[in-house]
Amino acid sequence: MDFRTVGILGGGQLGRMIVEAASRLNVKTVILDAANSPAKQINATGDHVEGSFANPEDIEKLAAKCDVLTVEIEHVDVPTLKKLQTTYPDLKIYPSPETIALIQDKFTQKEHLIKNGIAVAESIAIENATEQSLAAVGAKFGYPYMLKSRTLAYDGRGNFVVKSKDSIPQALQELHNRPLYAEKWAPFAKELAVMIVRAVDGKVFSYPTAETIHQDNICHTCFAPARVPDSVQLRAKLLAENAIKSFPGCGIFGVEMFYLDNGELLINEIAPRPHNSGHYTINACVTSQFEAHVRAVLELPLPRNFSTMATYDTNAIMLNILGDKETKDGELQICERALRTPGTSVYLYGKESRPKRKMGHINIVGSSMTECERKLSYLLGESKDNGSSSAADRLAPVIPGISQKPLVGVIMGSDSDLPVMSQACNILNQFDVPYEVTIVSAHRTPHRMSRYSIEAADRGLKVIIAGAGGAAHLPGMVAAMTPLPVIGVPVKGSTLDGVDSLHSIVQMPRGIPVATVAINNSTNAALLAIRMIGSSNSSYLRKMQEFLLKQEEEVLEKAGKIETIGYQSYLDQK
Amino acid sequence: MDFRTVGILGGGQLGRMIVEAASRLNVKTVILDAANSPAKQINATGDHVEGSFANPEDIEKLAAKCDVLTVEIEHVDVPTLKKLQTTYPDLKIYPSPETIALIQDKFTQKEHLIKNGIAVAESIAIENATEQSLAAVGAKFGYPYMLKSRTLAYDGRGNFVVKSKDSIPQALQELHNRPLYAEKWAPFAKELAVMIVRAVDGKVFSYPTAETIHQDNICHTCFAPARVPDSVQLRAKLLAENAIKSFPGCGIFGVEMFYLDNGELLINEIAPRPHNSGHYTINACVTSQFEAHVRAVLELPLPRNFSTMATYDTNAIMLNILGDKETKDGELQICERALRTPGTSVYLYGKESRPKRKMGHINIVGSSMTECERKLSYLLGESKDNGSSSAADRLAPVIPGISQKPLVGVIMGSDSDLPVMSQACNILNQFDVPYEVTIVSAHRTPHRMSRYSIEAADRGLKVIIAGAGGAAHLPGMVAAMTPLPVIGVPVKGSTLDGVDSLHSIVQMPRGIPVATVAINNSTNAALLAIRMIGSSNSSYLRKMQEFLLKQEEEVLEKAGKIETIGYQSYLDQK
Repeated sequence: MDFRTVGILGGGQLGRMIVEAASRLNVKTVILDAANSPAKQINATGDHVEGSFANPEDIEKLAAKCDVLTVEIEHVDVPTLKKLQTTYPDLKIYPSPETIALIQDKFTQKEHLIKNGIAVAESIAIENATEQSLAAVGAKFGYPYMLKSRTLAYDGRGNFVVKSKDSIPQALQELHNRPLYAEKWAPFAKELAVMIVRAVDGKVFSYPTAETIHQDNICHTCFAPARVPDSVQLRAKLLAENAIKSFPGCGIFGVEMFYLDNGELLINEIAPRPHNSGHYTINACVTSQFEAHVRAVLELPLPRNFSTMATYDTNAIMLNILGDKETKDGELQICERALRTPGTSVYLYGKESRPKRKMGHINIVGSSMTECERKLSYLLGESKDNGSSSAADRLAPVIPGISQKPLVGVIMGSDSDLPVMSQACNILNQFDVPYEVTIVSAHRTPHRMSRYSIEAADRGLKVIIAGAGGAAHLPGMVAAMTPLPVIGVPVKGSTLDGVDSLHSIVQMPRGIPVATVAINNSTNAALLAIRMIGSSNSSYLRKMQEFLLKQEEEVLEKAGKIETIGYQSYLDQK
Repeated sequence: MDFRTVGILGGGQLGRMIVEAASRLNVKTVILDAANSPAKQINATGDHVEGSFANPEDIEKLAAKCDVLTVEIEHVDVPTLKKLQTTYPDLKIYPSPETIALIQDKFTQKEHLIKNGIAVAESIAIENATEQSLAAVGAKFGYPYMLKSRTLAYDGRGNFVVKSKDSIPQALQELHNRPLYAEKWAPFAKELAVMIVRAVDGKVFSYPTAETIHQDNICHTCFAPARVPDSVQLRAKLLAENAIKSFPGCGIFGVEMFYLDNGELLINEIAPRPHNSGHYTINACVTSQFEAHVRAVLELPLPRNFSTMATYDTNAIMLNILGDKETKDGELQICERALRTPGTSVYLYGKESRPKRKMGHINIVGSSMTECERKLSYLLGESKDNGSSSAADRLAPVIPGISQKPLVGVIMGSDSDLPVMSQACNILNQFDVPYEVTIVSAHRTPHRMSRYSIEAADRGLKVIIAGAGGAAHLPGMVAAMTPLPVIGVPVKGSTLDGVDSLHSIVQMPRGIPVATVAINNSTNAALLAIRMIGSSNSSYLRKMQEFLLKQEEEVLEKAGKIETIGYQSYLDQK
């Protein structure tokens, strides 16, 4: 794709996944890190540099071999990078040394963000850390507050929660010799993270807002999109985009933020590189964070007219695989369960197993977050259901001969509606659509109706067909309790010719629609359900197109017959 | 994932992609092939064997280094593999040497398939190729017929079309010294291919039936699923599964077949390894063919209760990138266009560019085959539309301020319906759903209506909302010409209170449903459209859930007010 060589400072798992993405594009990479580091294992160039991304001489050795320099870690030697800009004027360094310098000192990072009008937690630098100065912070911010190392802090290392005045001596002991700052406690409801790609022209592209869950200060899982209202997702995305617009250079950035109990969003910190909270993008986005980074630093195109990297249906959970605390390689049991689970991919980094070490991650995708969560709980050994059989197996009636994972629910107020409603089932059989069928009465089983309606979407149903007669309340009541589309079939009763049912079903108030079909015409209800599913499932769409053609042919055949034998013989033959 | 080493005979692009999949699972691989072959480039083990997969000594060297032996090509030395089974009784060889032997001689392969009741083209072995014996074949099969080398034939090499008796001397010249067989001409409509994974217990898992297009005897593109009726896809899948069940051992198999003009399916040939027609699986399936192969030969789990590797919406096109015939590396122009196109991934194999050489491939995915085909034609330089702007830009009215790619079409029979129908637009705006709005009259613009209906699905619309009054024909007529769901809004006219419109819209005949809402209630039509889209788009589903909650809160607030201030004051304040 490109004949330039990309040098990478650091060869851990992030470097490894950058190399994988680069190799797919046939872009040559060379790594600076220890021998046999994860990134070097999958790159046989033989031209790697053995050493450290913090050592000026090693960095210079790497620079001599490449056209573009990038990082998988921000704790690199910035003065050397700045010097290289003069020594090798043609060498591109992305993220730019200025950006790395702004970010690697977390207090400088905060000052930069504040200067650019970006919301961050209130902080003060601590020039001279003594019991006195830390008590003064306590007096200003209240307890608890965070004491943080300005540099070289990650996965909880370099951070200390000062719970009260009494814990100050311990804080000083743990963080002595480090440059420090204090941060006001942010009472957050959730931690969010947004990956942003910045192109060299300053244009930014964002990934979906994700939600990270930490355990023992290490990222445990990441949910994308975050399980917060859309408006919060959008605000998080804008906050992240604005933050990254303020940094020079290009590449991928991870923006971590707090979503406070009061609804506020504050940036916690920024990483100028691929980030653990973006690993899900390999399976759930248009372009992975790693490929996006390679393309950005090489100034290769990113998709045009396109401002988000989400697919139209991104639902993903990333689970970090940490070295088992008791048995070496014990974590591989989770991976084995993952292999048994559809829609689940395992990524291992080629490291030796050590307790709590990040050994790899698992990406789970599904058609809903609930489905992903079910698979997660199977991977974690909390349930025996790996998502290949659905919750419907447990909650819904099982119909012999049809799939265990219904897409359509056919319900009716009474078994007297079954002769009419069974025509819908015939059509669903004919189109091979998995469905379930049962009785749910609005007036006689109101609680069953509520439960059915509330659980329908989570169980994986896509459409509900409800038939009812007389004062037909079922379709409208179900529609009031589910966000799914509900199709109403007016069933003709013994009086009023079904007009009572029709009007009861169709004349819903503004706010709660019911898709009403003709009186007694449950055939059309099923065909409508299939059209709805087909609008995002091309196989059913094709089947519907074929069905329409077949109907047309049947009529044309009859027309031909009338034209050939004459209308009278036609009538006689009927 | 596993501590065994997998040795691969052959290090071309198939080996490279096997290695990539193995590395993700941290499975060690060693390659037998020339130095710096594509697979070796991404594997720094240092333990590779330099040599040929046809050379017994080299194969033995590789076997000494590994626990499992597999192939990326079937033209390997089988007697050596059989010998290794005795020398190294613990070494697993998959696909089994017996299977490779059966397959690498195409005539033996055919005989094996026939013995197992699998449909193949009629063939005869040619023991002694002379003008006379070939003329005898012509007399038996008619002309043209295929003369094929039994071994070492691929990408058209080793095949000759005997067009008439006169071309026999040329055939003999081109294929002399090869073991030959003749095949009756198969007048095929399409070439199909199905990838099958066979687990060690004999269970098979199939990928979607794909359609391959060849140019100059080399695979050009592959469409998955194949653009044939579902029944043909299913028959192809069953034929492929039955064929693979007949071979011992495990691993992935590519099954190529002809779909004849008369509807018959005949197996053309089988490859006991990943196959060019399965490259699309990297982006469009639950597990790629390469990972499936690694897992099968290591006897690692494949997903349980699960018989297909398709996702619920697999739509993909694979385009091979062949070395440009005129300019070295000229093929990279196609790759650059691919980078500009959302949903398109580039895979380059690390080979030096030579005319017509397979340099890489591009996978295109989309929510419909039409969308993929549009992107393909952009990649091939045939169009300027890369799918990021939709065909809707050219065909449909552009609404200022809303997206260029509408999901909902709002149409009405007359501008007098606009006051009613505009409420639907307000709701769509509120939910941020891209839509288009225009006038389409069933009675005054019947041809425009036909065109609108026929093109709607291909333009990317998911739902059509049609409003009409009086003898309201528009919703039903549109529904008759599109497989998409159509929502009908009865618009109240000057007489009959809208009951005329309601009955005209709702009382459709069996076969063509219209989702009817209440008279004049286009608000509900839009809400219903959003529910339909939401059933397969979790973001809209969540929004609908929030909307229902908000409605509930509003009513509860009013209820609270009545309870607090009393009903009379409430009425007075209104």
